[in-house]
Amino acid sequence: MSDRVLHRLDEVYAIGGGPGANRAGLSAAEQEAHDLVAGWMEEAGLEVSVDAAGNLFGRLHGASDAKEIWTGSHLDSVPNGGRFDGALGVVAALEAVERLGPQGRTLAVVAFRDEEGWRFGRGCFGSRALCGRLRTSELENVDEEGVSIAAAVRSLGFGPIPESGWLERSPAAFVELHIEQGPVLDALGAPLGIVTSIAGLARLRVSFTGHGGHAGTTPMVRRRDALVAAAGFVLKVREAAEARESAVATVGYLTVKPNAANVVPARVELLVDARAPDAATLSALVDEIEAAAGDAHVQHLGRIEPVELDADRRAALRAVVEELGLLAPQLPSGAGHDAGVLAAAGVPSAILFVRSRAGGVSHSPDEHSDAVDVALAADALERALLRLSSR
Amino acid sequence: MSDRVLHRLDEVYAIGGGPGANRAGLSAAEQEAHDLVAGWMEEAGLEVSVDAAGNLFGRLHGASDAKEIWTGSHLDSVPNGGRFDGALGVVAALEAVERLGPQGRTLAVVAFRDEEGWRFGRGCFGSRALCGRLRTSELENVDEEGVSIAAAVRSLGFGPIPESGWLERSPAAFVELHIEQGPVLDALGAPLGIVTSIAGLARLRVSFTGHGGHAGTTPMVRRRDALVAAAGFVLKVREAAEARESAVATVGYLTVKPNAANVVPARVELLVDARAPDAATLSALVDEIEAAAGDAHVQHLGRIEPVELDADRRAALRAVVEELGLLAPQLPSGAGHDAGVLAAAGVPSAILFVRSRAGGVSHSPDEHSDAVDVALAADALERALLRLSSR
Repeated sequence: MSDRVLHRLDEVYAIGGGPGANRAGLSAAEQEAHDLVAGWMEEAGLEVSVDAAGNLFGRLHGASDAKEIWTGSHLDSVPNGGRFDGALGVVAALEAVERLGPQGRTLAVVAFRDEEGWRFGRGCFGSRALCGRLRTSELENVDEEGVSIAAAVRSLGFGPIPESGWLERSPAAFVELHIEQGPVLDALGAPLGIVTSIAGLARLRVSFTGHGGHAGTTPMVRRRDALVAAAGFVLKVREAAEARESAVATVGYLTVKPNAANVVPARVELLVDARAPDAATLSALVDEIEAAAGDAHVQHLGRIEPVELDADRRAALRAVVEELGLLAPQLPSGAGHDAGVLAAAGVPSAILFVRSRAGGVSHSPDEHSDAVDVALAADALERALLRLSSR
Repeated sequence: MSDRVLHRLDEVYAIGGGPGANRAGLSAAEQEAHDLVAGWMEEAGLEVSVDAAGNLFGRLHGASDAKEIWTGSHLDSVPNGGRFDGALGVVAALEAVERLGPQGRTLAVVAFRDEEGWRFGRGCFGSRALCGRLRTSELENVDEEGVSIAAAVRSLGFGPIPESGWLERSPAAFVELHIEQGPVLDALGAPLGIVTSIAGLARLRVSFTGHGGHAGTTPMVRRRDALVAAAGFVLKVREAAEARESAVATVGYLTVKPNAANVVPARVELLVDARAPDAATLSALVDEIEAAAGDAHVQHLGRIEPVELDADRRAALRAVVEELGLLAPQLPSGAGHDAGVLAAAGVPSAILFVRSRAGGVSHSPDEHSDAVDVALAADALERALLRLSSR
């Protein structure tokens, strides 16, 4: 039964205060979610450990010392986020492992840190740290309050983080269960789907500098209004994405300084999130966006290349979904996931998508998946872990 | 000598921390500035009082009980504001009164509260309260942290504020010394100028509501991005002002929700500041801006009609400026001032402008007026008060 899954999702969702989920990466609220899940892991008899990046592992040791099977996702959220994003993958993983009990291989439930990346500007912090995909210089990135990643990690009692990571004994497979966060499965009438690849992602910070001045006394012809410049750019970013099939680009973050009604904006800083299913399209999209920025200062915050998921583990997922008598559609993911980081680091990885309702809305309190789909997903994951651990 | 004026300006400027002036209306920093000036008033032998809105008065009683002469300005600032805006008018008024000593009429130095209005969305709080131009419902307006005007007033120990105001014994004149905050006097080569009228001002709050969603998984064609809608509007506001001579319009404040790089903006709220020298142009400008908002929600936060300043007191200012051997240009003000509120309430009012350098930039740490101009302004104000008090 999935009652326990839904009940646990509610408990995680209640952390951090509403509306919606509010568990910023490397915050006290994310830590509270990790502590809650660690408690459930212990109750289920799993051996709990936490690594240098604060990633949580709950292991159910198997009879053999063959490579482990990992499953999980993340427990952080965007501000005012949804109930299912990330948390479902962790809670359902725990459910599947609890139900299975000890198998041939050791099963590990994993919760990675700061997957969303909005706080410090770059996602998949925990999985990248583990896989040695995080440069030490990035630890000096700061959030809006000037807190660095290094300081946030330290204040939670973790670190230091070696650049080489700690994926010495790579698992035999990583399976991430996640909501689709899009409208495709709903349109197909399929509760579950198997991800083929993850779109590439580039993040840019663009800073527009104008001249501050009094809104009543600065003639229009003498103005250098940073917000007017930024507004034109926002429209061009949209046009650049619209011109490319299956590409998307978003200005989701924008701040004005000094942000007072009667002052001409002196400075606007914004973040661009650009994604495309192949590297060439992503490069062309980013080039067009950078050109549209004109005189503004553009900083490249990072780029994640598109990544293919493991054909063999995808086949295993497909088989168990079909065993349940369901359609098993294959689809790309527009969103990045920790499984993409592990796949890029050589871990055979796969992602099982659960149908999103409400038009696929996510990163919003309106995010929804049906209880029956959640139950099917937990069943499929349980079967997939059984299949993978007995090889 | 103006050394004392400049030194006192520095002391006021240091309050609230940099960069620039940071003394929000009805904040602890504004209060600190009021306390500092009240101390100087007492040292100078003025009788200090504070009214229900927290406006500060320092009176030097005259020999007669004829109507008083008031002079002053405000001590609050925009965020990262300039050294001279408002504060110069208070400090120079105190200087002029200190130098003059007791005269025929009582001279009062006044510092009005929250002239800038960015915190609660509408300016000239103190002078409007005094003049009975503030409706009780406005006291429920809140700042970004949800603090109401009423609560801010209460927490400083002031209030309650009767709608009828308390201008029972109207002064014979109010003279406000203020920096121009624009490029006109500098272009004319004139240290001082006399204001003819104050432009009308309308403030609008415009709220754009879209659909939040994941920046990677929401196809461009399905998006309702609140920031894209707002960006188009920002450009149209600029066009509407550019189409009308001597009109200006500014989107100086804009916030995005949830403001995360990987979330499609669900909501944008912004403030429009529109100004024009006559009522008909202001109405046409506001109508065009409102039409440009389309489906967005538009709230009219207030409108201040253009106001003529008193011809007789303007002539007095002109006479003393010419006595100093200076040009005495007449010019309109694009910025609102407390003197405009008093003029609209029937107080014979005039404004003496001091030349702004640096292209007339204001509401910015770059705001600057020359020490020699400040000294001339204090001299002119001293002579004007003498002239007005001996009538």
